[in-house]
Amino acid sequence: MSSNLSLAQGREYLAIPGPSVIPDAVLQAMHRPSPNIYAGELIKLTVSLLPDLRRVARTKHNVAIYISNGHGAWEAALANTIAEGETVLVPASGLFSHGWAQMVQGLGGNPHLIDFGRRDSWDFDRIASVLQADRNHRIKAVLAVHVDTSSSIRNNIPALRKLLDDLEHPALLMADCIASLGCDRFEMDDWGVDVTVAACQKGLMVPAGLGFVFFNDKAAAKRAQMPRVSRYWDWSPRANPEVFYQFFGGTAPTHHLFGLRAALDMIHDEGIEKIWARHATLARAIWAACETWAQEGPLEMNVANRDMRSNAVTSLRIGAPIGTTLRNYCQTHLGLTLGIGLGMATEDDPNSDGFFRLGHMGHVNGQMVMGMLGGIETALSALDIPHGAGALEAAARAMAER
Amino acid sequence: MSSNLSLAQGREYLAIPGPSVIPDAVLQAMHRPSPNIYAGELIKLTVSLLPDLRRVARTKHNVAIYISNGHGAWEAALANTIAEGETVLVPASGLFSHGWAQMVQGLGGNPHLIDFGRRDSWDFDRIASVLQADRNHRIKAVLAVHVDTSSSIRNNIPALRKLLDDLEHPALLMADCIASLGCDRFEMDDWGVDVTVAACQKGLMVPAGLGFVFFNDKAAAKRAQMPRVSRYWDWSPRANPEVFYQFFGGTAPTHHLFGLRAALDMIHDEGIEKIWARHATLARAIWAACETWAQEGPLEMNVANRDMRSNAVTSLRIGAPIGTTLRNYCQTHLGLTLGIGLGMATEDDPNSDGFFRLGHMGHVNGQMVMGMLGGIETALSALDIPHGAGALEAAARAMAER
Amino acid sequence: MSSNLSLAQGREYLAIPGPSVIPDAVLQAMHRPSPNIYAGELIKLTVSLLPDLRRVARTKHNVAIYISNGHGAWEAALANTIAEGETVLVPASGLFSHGWAQMVQGLGGNPHLIDFGRRDSWDFDRIASVLQADRNHRIKAVLAVHVDTSSSIRNNIPALRKLLDDLEHPALLMADCIASLGCDRFEMDDWGVDVTVAACQKGLMVPAGLGFVFFNDKAAAKRAQMPRVSRYWDWSPRANPEVFYQFFGGTAPTHHLFGLRAALDMIHDEGIEKIWARHATLARAIWAACETWAQEGPLEMNVANRDMRSNAVTSLRIGAPIGTTLRNYCQTHLGLTLGIGLGMATEDDPNSDGFFRLGHMGHVNGQMVMGMLGGIETALSALDIPHGAGALEAAARAMAER
Amino acid sequence: MSSNLSLAQGREYLAIPGPSVIPDAVLQAMHRPSPNIYAGELIKLTVSLLPDLRRVARTKHNVAIYISNGHGAWEAALANTIAEGETVLVPASGLFSHGWAQMVQGLGGNPHLIDFGRRDSWDFDRIASVLQADRNHRIKAVLAVHVDTSSSIRNNIPALRKLLDDLEHPALLMADCIASLGCDRFEMDDWGVDVTVAACQKGLMVPAGLGFVFFNDKAAAKRAQMPRVSRYWDWSPRANPEVFYQFFGGTAPTHHLFGLRAALDMIHDEGIEKIWARHATLARAIWAACETWAQEGPLEMNVANRDMRSNAVTSLRIGAPIGTTLRNYCQTHLGLTLGIGLGMATEDDPNSDGFFRLGHMGHVNGQMVMGMLGGIETALSALDIPHGAGALEAAARAMAER
Repeated sequence: MSSNLSLAQGREYLAIPGPSVIPDAVLQAMHRPSPNIYAGELIKLTVSLLPDLRRVARTKHNVAIYISNGHGAWEAALANTIAEGETVLVPASGLFSHGWAQMVQGLGGNPHLIDFGRRDSWDFDRIASVLQADRNHRIKAVLAVHVDTSSSIRNNIPALRKLLDDLEHPALLMADCIASLGCDRFEMDDWGVDVTVAACQKGLMVPAGLGFVFFNDKAAAKRAQMPRVSRYWDWSPRANPEVFYQFFGGTAPTHHLFGLRAALDMIHDEGIEKIWARHATLARAIWAACETWAQEGPLEMNVANRDMRSNAVTSLRIGAPIGTTLRNYCQTHLGLTLGIGLGMATEDDPNSDGFFRLGHMGHVNGQMVMGMLGGIETALSALDIPHGAGALEAAARAMAER
Repeated sequence: MSSNLSLAQGREYLAIPGPSVIPDAVLQAMHRPSPNIYAGELIKLTVSLLPDLRRVARTKHNVAIYISNGHGAWEAALANTIAEGETVLVPASGLFSHGWAQMVQGLGGNPHLIDFGRRDSWDFDRIASVLQADRNHRIKAVLAVHVDTSSSIRNNIPALRKLLDDLEHPALLMADCIASLGCDRFEMDDWGVDVTVAACQKGLMVPAGLGFVFFNDKAAAKRAQMPRVSRYWDWSPRANPEVFYQFFGGTAPTHHLFGLRAALDMIHDEGIEKIWARHATLARAIWAACETWAQEGPLEMNVANRDMRSNAVTSLRIGAPIGTTLRNYCQTHLGLTLGIGLGMATEDDPNSDGFFRLGHMGHVNGQMVMGMLGGIETALSALDIPHGAGALEAAARAMAER
Repeated sequence: MSSNLSLAQGREYLAIPGPSVIPDAVLQAMHRPSPNIYAGELIKLTVSLLPDLRRVARTKHNVAIYISNGHGAWEAALANTIAEGETVLVPASGLFSHGWAQMVQGLGGNPHLIDFGRRDSWDFDRIASVLQADRNHRIKAVLAVHVDTSSSIRNNIPALRKLLDDLEHPALLMADCIASLGCDRFEMDDWGVDVTVAACQKGLMVPAGLGFVFFNDKAAAKRAQMPRVSRYWDWSPRANPEVFYQFFGGTAPTHHLFGLRAALDMIHDEGIEKIWARHATLARAIWAACETWAQEGPLEMNVANRDMRSNAVTSLRIGAPIGTTLRNYCQTHLGLTLGIGLGMATEDDPNSDGFFRLGHMGHVNGQMVMGMLGGIETALSALDIPHGAGALEAAARAMAER
Repeated sequence: MSSNLSLAQGREYLAIPGPSVIPDAVLQAMHRPSPNIYAGELIKLTVSLLPDLRRVARTKHNVAIYISNGHGAWEAALANTIAEGETVLVPASGLFSHGWAQMVQGLGGNPHLIDFGRRDSWDFDRIASVLQADRNHRIKAVLAVHVDTSSSIRNNIPALRKLLDDLEHPALLMADCIASLGCDRFEMDDWGVDVTVAACQKGLMVPAGLGFVFFNDKAAAKRAQMPRVSRYWDWSPRANPEVFYQFFGGTAPTHHLFGLRAALDMIHDEGIEKIWARHATLARAIWAACETWAQEGPLEMNVANRDMRSNAVTSLRIGAPIGTTLRNYCQTHLGLTLGIGLGMATEDDPNSDGFFRLGHMGHVNGQMVMGMLGGIETALSALDIPHGAGALEAAARAMAER
């Protein structure tokens, strides 16, 4: 391998689980002068976003847009619903539930976290026993991460709803769909979700900078009982503004709104059902390749059960330091950036060097997925990492069979 | 005047007091793929922003960057320093002090607001008497809006510092420089400001979406005494992160950072002292024209005293409904968007139709200012609004004399 | 005047007579990946351009698009119509007729040039005498520059047509509308023009790189008699292609076509009649200012007679070296780039330093024109150049009166 | 296969042999206002392009830039060197030699074409016999297509030079490097090429619209003897301009020059030798896959001999109508556009439906190539086209072995 050669000149492919690949139409829409923020097209455009956002989340209820990242949207959802001293239940599969629980603490709430590790979805028996024990309904909300970006676990939200209903527990069901919205099937109203948290830089295909909180009447009623909600996070004026600046609690995020408009146009042109199907097909192709590689050598799927895997991100285990070595090879030699392992640190692998992740969310298609998988095949070959044969053809067949 | 003719085809000039005109270099820098958010150029670029932001605010202390607008930065500054039940003093000249005071209430604090109206800067005697009466130092901070975007009043921050020092009052001095940073002279450290709040869409020439809070050791000490700070607003990890994502309390605002880098490069290429001088010269030209027009007919400067006027925005009074008529003419016929009157509503003029504002902040030069003033002259002429003669030549002379 | 101050930071305004200001919509449309050049959207888009180009030139006849500049389009028009040894008549008012005549020589033709200098339009008596003397009709074409970009003279094409008709002279009437198309009224079919030459970087608002030749049946008949036409310049396959690549005699100018589509959309949204009216109004405002300045001091209109002036460009005389000094001041201090004097060199002023030109073609509106004029007023003042008073107000009144 | 599903949402990959993929840096550089064309940065930038263009073509001699496509550059090269009635020799392997020969006819020259078909490179014995028979040296030039984009044949230019030298034939050696420059090794001076023709939209990675003619002193001497050269094509003032506009024979192609500057920066950052090596490695990977597929079923390399294949384009035979079916599948289902068969029409296959081509020129890297090959594998599988197994792994190994 000649050290002074590189195959990395050419288009970079950022195949990490967010931020995702931004479509040209979105970047074009953002390359424009600032608009007037008091009258004209921006007002009309902003109003047009709301029903289209609701369609993506499959809800007829409210949406508040925040200039923030997903963590800000987490805090916004909590700031409107959880008062100081109140308790929330956090069934944690993967890393991000822990982060959301910490946001609760930052606001003076009391998170009750059940840790299901980094490879399995929720154990509903354990959740049920905690809810049953909560006779006085001190648990005001259940924080449910739909897809955990670190582990690639997808949790079963409808089953959690059914559990709450069966137990007649009145806690709000709050779903974090940051990694799943616009990728994995999600039906806010049909699934009985009360609050949905999302952000723009994954399935919504817009540069990072917008958070979204969808909420229904039950959640709004809880907000109405709050002793106080900070002005910036208060979702009431944002969802039902009297004057335009209240949409954003101040100056509008002008260019992101133009980008979001372009992205929603693309989403609705394709159709959300077709988008879910596309993600499912691409995920099956990726799994076919990864499972084939895993038949020999160190590669292993982080989530064994296909039913518990997200269609938007795939976490893989390969042993330290190979994960990092492989990522570096892909980046340096092939123009392909894979995601780092996240939240998988152990004493033996403090930097999660034994893991890597594939993002396949949003603006992604068959040739991109084959480029990503072909890059990994090349790296496995170049680095002499043992691996099962026929992975790429298996992926091609999986796509061909759709 | 032929109704089916328009002179508005051509470049639109958005001459409102924020968002300001975005330079091409900033928009170009933002038109790019999403970067990796865990390694590589983005990390290096982000680190490079901090000293350059400090140079603009003239401070050696800390800066926290928020994905938010200016209102978010207001809340961030308060969330780190004002605990529930604590009192702040708000000397209010113009509209925005009232908004900041409301943010205090939203966080459970207690604002003491002294209202100096919409045309005058602070009366230091009245401020002094309140501070003197505060023997137990229950006032924990003074919220000082440097430039009020609605009224175009510029307040004297160094004099307020001197007053606090003379009275040996320990309250934090917090300055809102959203409209002034990068336009009007501001020296955080030399002027003894403890906390400075800013945003990116005015003098910093970046599309709306970033807020900044600068804070010194005294402010940091107050934060250390806080019973609790919400995770999103906590400035400590943002200003001194251990891992990259802490800079932004989650996902980085990738494209805005590229835009900000380009804007700071322009700022430092020109030099902040020269930028202040440029804004001062352009403001003098604008005042020369406006004061000339005001010699006859209804036009009037909102702020009579030149020493109390911002170099970045000019508020004008012309009587309802002429203000709105004039703005509409400029927009429809000339491609020129002027700012609406803000916060000037009275019973007779509930929509502030008797006012308009000129933005001259950030990416602005002599030919732009002459285009704006020439547009107003055209509108005054077309609408038969009486006005003093020779305004444009007065402006040209003022620029020529610099 | 402090030497270390500058007012040039801010938007640059390129007020030269071509290339003109490119609209954002055009630049956005060009910022995209290369398309397939054998199938799909590009083919459809290209076909859509032809009727829209014809509408701009007011013709029902043919159009050939060339990847070239205006000089290339000159050569293309000649290569299809003028055989070796044939004669053309060139009534020259301004510089560019001389250039076109040289293209004739380069192709082996024989230009008969009548020079009317740089300040006056054609003298029809002199043209008539040459045509009348041409009893054998050796003159195969008359090359008529509609608007000369150097002198800002606009020639009377319909009167030339009438002369040819009155004399029953069969020469082709070929018009150079490079500087006038989309600015000054031009009616190819109604005026009896046989061949029209244009380019994209002036009234058509697209970055330089496309030339256009419109031709009618009479011109096509002349082409059919040509012994040979070079493959690249041959307009027949371009105007009536059997396969797509023949439109462009090879690879299509992909990005320019997307830009041109956006520009034609803007043109037809506004309407060509309104575009002509807009240019006429803006020109009257510019003349009002310039004629006022000229009442005192050295400034002088190059073309005294308003009827002979283009609505797209204005040439001014001010004496060497003041022209260059003034241009430099505007560029360095105000962000305003004015056009140099072109083709006006004399022994005393070999570099045309005593001249400058204003471009007001294409994407231009009232506030831009006032910025340009206000900049000149500032320069006149700063450089102590004597000039008449009230010029800017005269311009404002002229625009207001439309 | 569900007819209403699509995997084509996502980044489109245009894998045709030109126009090639435009780098973001080039598009960014072109998204800017028009510059002054008489002074300032554009002049400096243009001058900077010349040595860098020469470095790409490996020559110390002259370069003329044309606003044109490659066909225009063909005509330019001929217009400067071949007078009416003169003869040129055209050894034709593939389609494009025929096109260039037609350009000769269009200029009145006399092409002597030897047709070597569409699958083989030149037969030097046949060429030698023609040259030997030309005792009076009526052949003034040999037109040598280096890489034929239709057939993917790469011809041996140094061997042709040697033949001319051995026979002491004084004809100019003119090379068409439109498809090879910046991809396949080409050494103008070392190989003794007198005139090199190129264009910007392939290895140079700029949107179509610029042609280049490089020429040495021998070619310049021939030009000096020409009775006449048309003004637009005359390379003398372009290569050695006295005033700026002569570089482009009129208005400069402003935005393309900014794009070309960015592309040349990328080329020289990587280094031309490394670029050649990158293309060679990627080509080997592509051949490894294609040759493996070809082991079973209808796919066949158009050029059997690896030494005669270009590193920039690969032509494949698969039988009508499968070629078109396969291309359509890739485009519709995978977001991958492959090149059509060109110039391969037969009676049985009038539209070349039995062929397709892969472009791998310019801004291309390992993950892109794997995406292209993976897409083809998917199509072969979906369409039940028999093909050899293990093609993608063979490609991966070929890249890994570099």
